Amino acid sequence: MQLKNDIFLRAVRGEKTERPPVWLMRQAGRILASYRAVREKLSGFKELVETPELACEVTLQPVDELGVDAAIIFSDILVIPEALGLPYQMEEKKGPYFPHTINNQTDIDALLAADEAAERLDYVYNALQLTQKALNGRVPLIGFAGAPFTIFAYMVEGSGSKTFSKAKKMLYQAPDMAHELLQKITNATILYLQKQVAAGADVIQVFDSWAGLLSPQSFNEFSLAYMQQIVDAVRPYAPITLFAKDATGSLLDIAATGCNVLGLGWGTSPTQARRLLGANTIIQGNLDPCALYADTNTVTALTQKMIAGFGQHHICNLGHGVYPDTPLDSVKAFIDAAKNFRYQ
Amino acid sequence: MQLKNDIFLRAVRGEKTERPPVWLMRQAGRILASYRAVREKLSGFKELVETPELACEVTLQPVDELGVDAAIIFSDILVIPEALGLPYQMEEKKGPYFPHTINNQTDIDALLAADEAAERLDYVYNALQLTQKALNGRVPLIGFAGAPFTIFAYMVEGSGSKTFSKAKKMLYQAPDMAHELLQKITNATILYLQKQVAAGADVIQVFDSWAGLLSPQSFNEFSLAYMQQIVDAVRPYAPITLFAKDATGSLLDIAATGCNVLGLGWGTSPTQARRLLGANTIIQGNLDPCALYADTNTVTALTQKMIAGFGQHHICNLGHGVYPDTPLDSVKAFIDAAKNFRYQ
Repeated sequence: MQLKNDIFLRAVRGEKTERPPVWLMRQAGRILASYRAVREKLSGFKELVETPELACEVTLQPVDELGVDAAIIFSDILVIPEALGLPYQMEEKKGPYFPHTINNQTDIDALLAADEAAERLDYVYNALQLTQKALNGRVPLIGFAGAPFTIFAYMVEGSGSKTFSKAKKMLYQAPDMAHELLQKITNATILYLQKQVAAGADVIQVFDSWAGLLSPQSFNEFSLAYMQQIVDAVRPYAPITLFAKDATGSLLDIAATGCNVLGLGWGTSPTQARRLLGANTIIQGNLDPCALYADTNTVTALTQKMIAGFGQHHICNLGHGVYPDTPLDSVKAFIDAAKNFRYQ
Repeated sequence: MQLKNDIFLRAVRGEKTERPPVWLMRQAGRILASYRAVREKLSGFKELVETPELACEVTLQPVDELGVDAAIIFSDILVIPEALGLPYQMEEKKGPYFPHTINNQTDIDALLAADEAAERLDYVYNALQLTQKALNGRVPLIGFAGAPFTIFAYMVEGSGSKTFSKAKKMLYQAPDMAHELLQKITNATILYLQKQVAAGADVIQVFDSWAGLLSPQSFNEFSLAYMQQIVDAVRPYAPITLFAKDATGSLLDIAATGCNVLGLGWGTSPTQARRLLGANTIIQGNLDPCALYADTNTVTALTQKMIAGFGQHHICNLGHGVYPDTPLDSVKAFIDAAKNFRYQ
């Protein structure tokens, strides 16, 4: 289908663009009154994730209301552990919780095979198909998954944590077991992402939310090696973005995977990122989400400064998901700053 | 007083040493049965902090039992906000909690003056005097404080947080007010640290635990500018270590403050740190605390590899405080790896 607004795809392909495309991680969410209205009628967060019509509806809201240059399917990275046989609960204000966790070889052996797991996620593929149809070529659609290490961290730790020391303990005490679990997650994730592309995802993004917990050496061994497998398996079908939050010490290694786009947290300045990665790496990010608490004039100025700092081959975004209590006017000022910018 | 073991001080002064000195952040704490025995008899954590004889006792335990090359006074970074007029509670397993937080100008105006605050911390100075006497020259004694930004984050947020978005909101919404609060904290911290030196601290360390929350630009403006004031005010009296955890994108700026020692989290490899900072910067760190969950042979190998990676001008430590459930044998293997190492 011919896209009406293809600036995001052109940037992802490495073409020069007249301005940076713009979207926000977690743009389909609590910042929008229309989202909160849908959410209030439901039993919980997971009903929204698992009902394709509703996931489609909230995916479209920021496209309609904010004018972003890309849609990202409303879903959750934790559908993969659930599909592998480890269900989770989403507790209000506390985040995810796994009643059962992975503690030993028996727990790993009990997980489902990758193809069985990927087949249990039809609701995601259906949501993608519905959304592509409803978008009707307005903007491209992003599919996503968690990075294997981040999924591993939740499956072993059982919930969020400041240190994830239980999950990291397995890396040091039983590295072979950790690798086996990471490989199982990776196998399922590859099939899951290939099916997302088949269902209509134009671009794939992998979120390594907890990459910052690892030393550069451990990151290479326990996270990047598996993201490399995903890049190799998905890139023949769709462009892929790797976003390894806080892996500031590993940016060159991430770029070397051959991912199309490198997502950047706010821990690196545009100047330092460009010096390290060169002018041609396609970088997505990286304004501090808290910058959107400022007045709209400040938001505009900070966004323009960031865009000028990165120059061409940049996709304007935050350095993390937008926080739920961010004022909508600031979100709009951020988006408008990108849409009104013109490269010299 | 002539020190029996001065290898830590020699390294801090920039001299070459036969091996790296070694100590651990949070070495006086739950890893030791003797600490847990003292702690169990008390009403809470703060009784230990506020009773000089007890603080002295647990400060000496790792010197006696582990043979580390430096003692660090047992205390807490949050004594400064409390002395400024904002008391805190330490909740078991949950961490610190402030019943009152700083929300507006009136709250800032109500804080005590720096000299009054510093005078309320006699129990820390007494603990340092007692400990110096009891150490009797065995090893040097480290005093410490939290970095102004980290203290600010607790005073505004009121507790630990994944994002500290309430505290960061003030940086963007009311930067002048944030600077005023940061300056008040800095003034009190400078007096506090000078009095620590007068009471016997041989070296000072400043902990910026939450530096990683800031972009490099915000770090310079809201954190490093105040640490610079501290370096300038304390360095005439004692050497000073800055430890800004996770400020991986700002290492050159931290080194440029003129601090004597740069504390490093585990997010940077020894190779990358040396390439960035050169061979002569004195670096303290940076093994992943979770590495101590490995078997002792692995701990020894990982520690030796790190020490060889940094070379001379290195103080062997972890990249963060030792976790309370770390096996004591691993802690000993870590210390022994440093003590048995010989530079070529």
